[in-house]
Amino acid sequence: MKTSLKAVGSLLLLSPLMQSVKAKQPNIIFFLVDDYGWADSQVSYDGVEYPNNKRFHTPNMQKLADMGVRFSHAYACPVSTPTRTSMLSGMNACNSHITNWTSMAKDEPSDAVGGANGATTYQEKPEDIFRRPEWNINGLSPVDGIEGTQYATPMVQILRDAGYYTIHVGKAHWASAGTPGATPYNMGFIVNVCGNNAGLPKSYRGQENYGNTAEKWNMSAVQDLTQYYGQDVFLTEAITREALKMLDYPVSQKKPFYLYMSHFATHTPIQKDKRFYDYYADMGQDEGQAKYASMVEGVDKSLGDIFQYLKDKDIADNTIIIFMADNGGNADVKSKGGIVHTQNAPLREGKGSCYDGGIRVPMSIYWPGKTAAGTQIDIPVMPEDMFPTILNMAGVKKYSTVQKVDGKDLCRLIVDGSKYVAKTSNRMVPKEVSNIDPQREIIFHYPHQWKIIYKPEIDFLSTIIIGEWKLVYVMMNAVEGQHVDPSLGKIDPSSYASSSVPGIRCGALELYNIKQDIGETKNVAALHPDKVAELAKTLSKRLRENNASMPVIRATGKKVPMPDELL
Amino acid sequence: MKTSLKAVGSLLLLSPLMQSVKAKQPNIIFFLVDDYGWADSQVSYDGVEYPNNKRFHTPNMQKLADMGVRFSHAYACPVSTPTRTSMLSGMNACNSHITNWTSMAKDEPSDAVGGANGATTYQEKPEDIFRRPEWNINGLSPVDGIEGTQYATPMVQILRDAGYYTIHVGKAHWASAGTPGATPYNMGFIVNVCGNNAGLPKSYRGQENYGNTAEKWNMSAVQDLTQYYGQDVFLTEAITREALKMLDYPVSQKKPFYLYMSHFATHTPIQKDKRFYDYYADMGQDEGQAKYASMVEGVDKSLGDIFQYLKDKDIADNTIIIFMADNGGNADVKSKGGIVHTQNAPLREGKGSCYDGGIRVPMSIYWPGKTAAGTQIDIPVMPEDMFPTILNMAGVKKYSTVQKVDGKDLCRLIVDGSKYVAKTSNRMVPKEVSNIDPQREIIFHYPHQWKIIYKPEIDFLSTIIIGEWKLVYVMMNAVEGQHVDPSLGKIDPSSYASSSVPGIRCGALELYNIKQDIGETKNVAALHPDKVAELAKTLSKRLRENNASMPVIRATGKKVPMPDELL
Repeated sequence: MKTSLKAVGSLLLLSPLMQSVKAKQPNIIFFLVDDYGWADSQVSYDGVEYPNNKRFHTPNMQKLADMGVRFSHAYACPVSTPTRTSMLSGMNACNSHITNWTSMAKDEPSDAVGGANGATTYQEKPEDIFRRPEWNINGLSPVDGIEGTQYATPMVQILRDAGYYTIHVGKAHWASAGTPGATPYNMGFIVNVCGNNAGLPKSYRGQENYGNTAEKWNMSAVQDLTQYYGQDVFLTEAITREALKMLDYPVSQKKPFYLYMSHFATHTPIQKDKRFYDYYADMGQDEGQAKYASMVEGVDKSLGDIFQYLKDKDIADNTIIIFMADNGGNADVKSKGGIVHTQNAPLREGKGSCYDGGIRVPMSIYWPGKTAAGTQIDIPVMPEDMFPTILNMAGVKKYSTVQKVDGKDLCRLIVDGSKYVAKTSNRMVPKEVSNIDPQREIIFHYPHQWKIIYKPEIDFLSTIIIGEWKLVYVMMNAVEGQHVDPSLGKIDPSSYASSSVPGIRCGALELYNIKQDIGETKNVAALHPDKVAELAKTLSKRLRENNASMPVIRATGKKVPMPDELL
Repeated sequence: MKTSLKAVGSLLLLSPLMQSVKAKQPNIIFFLVDDYGWADSQVSYDGVEYPNNKRFHTPNMQKLADMGVRFSHAYACPVSTPTRTSMLSGMNACNSHITNWTSMAKDEPSDAVGGANGATTYQEKPEDIFRRPEWNINGLSPVDGIEGTQYATPMVQILRDAGYYTIHVGKAHWASAGTPGATPYNMGFIVNVCGNNAGLPKSYRGQENYGNTAEKWNMSAVQDLTQYYGQDVFLTEAITREALKMLDYPVSQKKPFYLYMSHFATHTPIQKDKRFYDYYADMGQDEGQAKYASMVEGVDKSLGDIFQYLKDKDIADNTIIIFMADNGGNADVKSKGGIVHTQNAPLREGKGSCYDGGIRVPMSIYWPGKTAAGTQIDIPVMPEDMFPTILNMAGVKKYSTVQKVDGKDLCRLIVDGSKYVAKTSNRMVPKEVSNIDPQREIIFHYPHQWKIIYKPEIDFLSTIIIGEWKLVYVMMNAVEGQHVDPSLGKIDPSSYASSSVPGIRCGALELYNIKQDIGETKNVAALHPDKVAELAKTLSKRLRENNASMPVIRATGKKVPMPDELL
């Protein structure tokens, strides 16, 4: 009898039923859109309908926002890799020193240097004003000792260790080829389709084999999709189908899954998604606008297909969906139509820039049974917040990392905060409710020249946002005698006070009230010197603490001064 | 008390311990080598040591053969795709009509037509004697209705449905791009690394990004390996590392796995594996031979790494390993060194040919606790046998397929047969022991011209093997007035009786006794007309039953006659 009881005891210990006593681990879908503007959908993220919102038909993004909580001030880094590595490592880009996108090949810095125009290579030239900063040009690494990388414990590895079936589909772009971080398989993913070192797709067109043709090929040709070659299947559709196929295994096994559905769209090349183009052309949009809008609706359809899958499999009520973009829309390409540098209106500028058009992104989160439907939160959030937030959503309480995690767990903000908003209509959820300080410091740092032509409204900028105040540090203007004429994009010492935006003094430290002036059209630094000083000091403190990458002034051999040195 | 007992009862029903009452599902590793000759290792598969065996250092292949059972007469199709699709579908190539390799692009037949030389394209020319046969040029499909494909239920899908975690690493090559069969993800695999429509690797060299460079790129550039780009990691090593990484998940979950470890090696391009090259060069082998041998030893090292992994994870005693090649060694490339068309000695010819050099392949199987160590079985086996054999190994008893499965379950032969051999030393295991008839019909059918230059010892051949007798049907010679001079590779009506092998009458129906004459040097058709007739009739019956693909004679518009029509 004793033996028999013992046997039953051991069965109890090992039974899967015992595990269900633990809270059920929710599925998590992280739905990421590339180079995607804050106003580029029918969804209003701040309660105001802007002209841009009317140009897009995105019923599924609307549905998601209405089901859950949307953020009016979700921020991302100005370019792709820093946002993606911040999410995966929990580190602010100042801390990881991954402040720019990683080039496809190892040891090849992607940033143009440093203020001179018309270069045909990314080599430093005598007329450059800056030397490029030292930064982690090869990106993130899950392995220590890889040159030019930040070593980190990837969030997805922790999820996997906690029992999640982790799936990567689409664009990865955490690291350069030839380093371990180039493949999702080294970042904690159990399955990977397409993800590697590439930061864009050579082509969205199945008919062009997604770029896999001898004439067109480079490393951005999309891998893993040979079954669609030659077919009229747009890339957004192809990777959605693959993602749903990959879900079948964990769903059949009743394993919690983490799907990182990382769309290449709406990155360049801007190509027509034929399924949706005519609607926008018929609406009177120019060709580029209609193409871009068709790509956006392709992404929206992907989200809708995921909704349908979750419904069909009866797992919608246990699946969290996080929708976000990796940086603002690209406002520096004519192929998107409209007028360049205004395409993210009402926001100023776009991808690459620390003005809000580059860093403010759409974001909605639906957490079944937890989020209050149709709410909007105005507390600013950052990509590194995703690290502790997703782990907490997954019920992972204890873990260790080799890196210092900068991000804040947003779960209380998302759950209690959205309920508080639903009840009170106060979108600035107080700290007592969410433990996220509404006055938290939001910092982005871009000590780089993005493209070969120097653009003063994009290149060599840092920013700090605290509440409604935003300081932008224009590094190039901090160099004596090197002030810019943004209208020409050339260095012109006589143009210190000029700007492309009338009324803005183009100084080294610019101040905006982004609550009153969403388009950052009025530099009010001269009116609020104390606020400028306060923000400059805080930004400088953070940059110093992280030994942040800074360009070097060629003429002096010294690093660009910290913002507070200009006070 | 009643409630409590009930609760315990339901726990008992659901407990994983209960499942272990069922036979534990073994892990299965299918280790496939590409274009790999029967004598290209230190292992003797028929108990005789040939000069070629002495040229290779393959301790792990030796270890596997010594641990389990080796086959002296394991056969495969003359080229890659038919063998691979036969294993996955269980169909003989005559039945699937996938008789040649599939080209990378859809709807582009890979076979040269049809007897004329020096063509620069694969288009039919007036001087061709044959039109190419109709065959399934796009390969195998898991979906019905795809033009140019054979629809089938893939064996791996059945394994997956039975609870196996199915992993594909390396070369797939079941179907052309643009069809569902191009990706392992549609063939039942849960994870895929590298597998697609490509039949060879553009480069084995990490320094050349495995072919992923703008100068070199074509569809055979190997995908999924960006992390190794620019590094000195040979492709064989890279995919072995990836395979072991993929195993971590099912091993951690204690899920039975099926790993299809499908090496690109030793397919062309013949490239030096630097880790092993010097040993062979120092031995006095010419450069090509030493390069090829270094690639072989790279494969052997991969097998050794798998042994070590299984040991480290303590799963060696529950893991079946099947080692095999997809067709004979390529004897038509100078880059392998030695003398072309003799590189598979003692066997005649090589890849593409129905002479034994093209179809007889190395094969060893280790089934822990089941196979008798160090045994050799002489019963011939075929690639389609792998379908029912692997399913039976996995304990899958009931399944349905949309296709007719031609292969035979070899489990009794492998288990009882190897024990019988160990006891009796009789390598021709009788039917009572294994239920595999030692006199079973082995049929391969290659109604194609392999390359642009017509080669009479490779192109347009069929064969049937019954016991020690082998009939080779030389289709080109069956056409009146179109007999070949193999030494020139040209059509020469006066050369009917000539052959590149002295003493062989180059007829339409050739007969060999492969027991007495392993090199197929003596065509004994004239001495055994009854045997010729018997084999020709049996072969014809099978070809007719399957409505096998046959070339069409341009001059007459009729199909090449069946072998028995020549009697």
